[in-house]
Amino acid sequence: MGAIIGDIEKRLQDLGITLPEPLDPTKYGFKFLPVNRHGDLLYVSGNGDLSITGQVGGDLTVEQGYQAARGAALQCLAVMQKELGTLDKVKKIFKVLGFINSAPGFGQQPAVLNGCSDLLIDVFGEKGKHARSAIGTLALPMGLAVEVEMLVVVE
Amino acid sequence: MGAIIGDIEKRLQDLGITLPEPLDPTKYGFKFLPVNRHGDLLYVSGNGDLSITGQVGGDLTVEQGYQAARGAALQCLAVMQKELGTLDKVKKIFKVLGFINSAPGFGQQPAVLNGCSDLLIDVFGEKGKHARSAIGTLALPMGLAVEVEMLVVVE
Amino acid sequence: MGAIIGDIEKRLQDLGITLPEPLDPTKYGFKFLPVNRHGDLLYVSGNGDLSITGQVGGDLTVEQGYQAARGAALQCLAVMQKELGTLDKVKKIFKVLGFINSAPGFGQQPAVLNGCSDLLIDVFGEKGKHARSAIGTLALPMGLAVEVEMLVVVE
Repeated sequence: MGAIIGDIEKRLQDLGITLPEPLDPTKYGFKFLPVNRHGDLLYVSGNGDLSITGQVGGDLTVEQGYQAARGAALQCLAVMQKELGTLDKVKKIFKVLGFINSAPGFGQQPAVLNGCSDLLIDVFGEKGKHARSAIGTLALPMGLAVEVEMLVVVE
Repeated sequence: MGAIIGDIEKRLQDLGITLPEPLDPTKYGFKFLPVNRHGDLLYVSGNGDLSITGQVGGDLTVEQGYQAARGAALQCLAVMQKELGTLDKVKKIFKVLGFINSAPGFGQQPAVLNGCSDLLIDVFGEKGKHARSAIGTLALPMGLAVEVEMLVVVE
Repeated sequence: MGAIIGDIEKRLQDLGITLPEPLDPTKYGFKFLPVNRHGDLLYVSGNGDLSITGQVGGDLTVEQGYQAARGAALQCLAVMQKELGTLDKVKKIFKVLGFINSAPGFGQQPAVLNGCSDLLIDVFGEKGKHARSAIGTLALPMGLAVEVEMLVVVE
């Protein structure tokens, strides 16, 4: 984590970003792989920032939701880096699917999920631009405010 | 839009369908691409018909939800056409994921999402037949009744 | 169904598992394909166990939800087997997306979706290990407790 290994890791350092510890599903008894690869496609399992829980538009403001979406993206980067060795191997963020724990009637999921999208574009530039769906829901694992999964093209 | 460019555009005209203006996410400050391509796969970001909002099974009937799903599909076609030049380049609608803004206890999401599926089959015939999941949720961006994303195989 | 055709079918028999009748969407007027294939990728449409309905964390316990997730996975295997002839043609379960009908505040979706994941690993071993997202929602088709879709790599 501390060691700089590639251009993207250098970019993270320039942005003042330290990646969090990647999620180890086995630690929680969850029976899935953090990432799974087929050819040049890498599916990143749903990740969230465990430090930000609750419903956006109710317990949490849009800005807090934005930070939760950014945190979810950082968790995704952490498991990708662990898998790939360096994030330089990311060729394209193909697709993001983000679920926002939402108070009834809340409709600003896209503004919340921008927290994920802005980070991806800051870190990867053109390669970070992605297709996306933002969905509201009423309950996420462990009360997460935001859960994000990604489909990524890799070297 | 008005101009007929391919067989599918001709088919749309025969069906009396005029595609809507494709969503420009930047207009709303949303940080994503309407579509993203990798090889012959095209991911179409979540789209909906902004003219039909509210919860199906509560504010809206199943038939109104069906129209919202049809409208969401038309929005997807509009961004695909903008990307591809002509919808003739669509080889297969591979997968549809549709979220239905649902009143508590509402369980007819598949009948609602048929509004999207019927349109795809009307327009593309065999190529329009797709795998699909229909999911109920309580909140969608800007109060949309239905949001649909698609994974499409293109030339 | 009863006939053993491959190693995985033998494995199912050893585990005491009889696959259910595969969903025929046309029977319900649903306009989608149970599975759709492109190259070596097979998308399995959202499936659930119609015998287990209600909200987990409310009407249903986590253990009942676990059984519903297992039942959803069995339904997915049934349509895959129908498509492929034998489940031996499955090379990898690439990705699972599971929606859990959840009571407000319920946060144990991953424990519920383990019912699907455990089954896949029991049946396919290493090939059954997958990326995954577990999402809570308030309403699923026909009141299903759990709906699961899969992206599978096949021969």
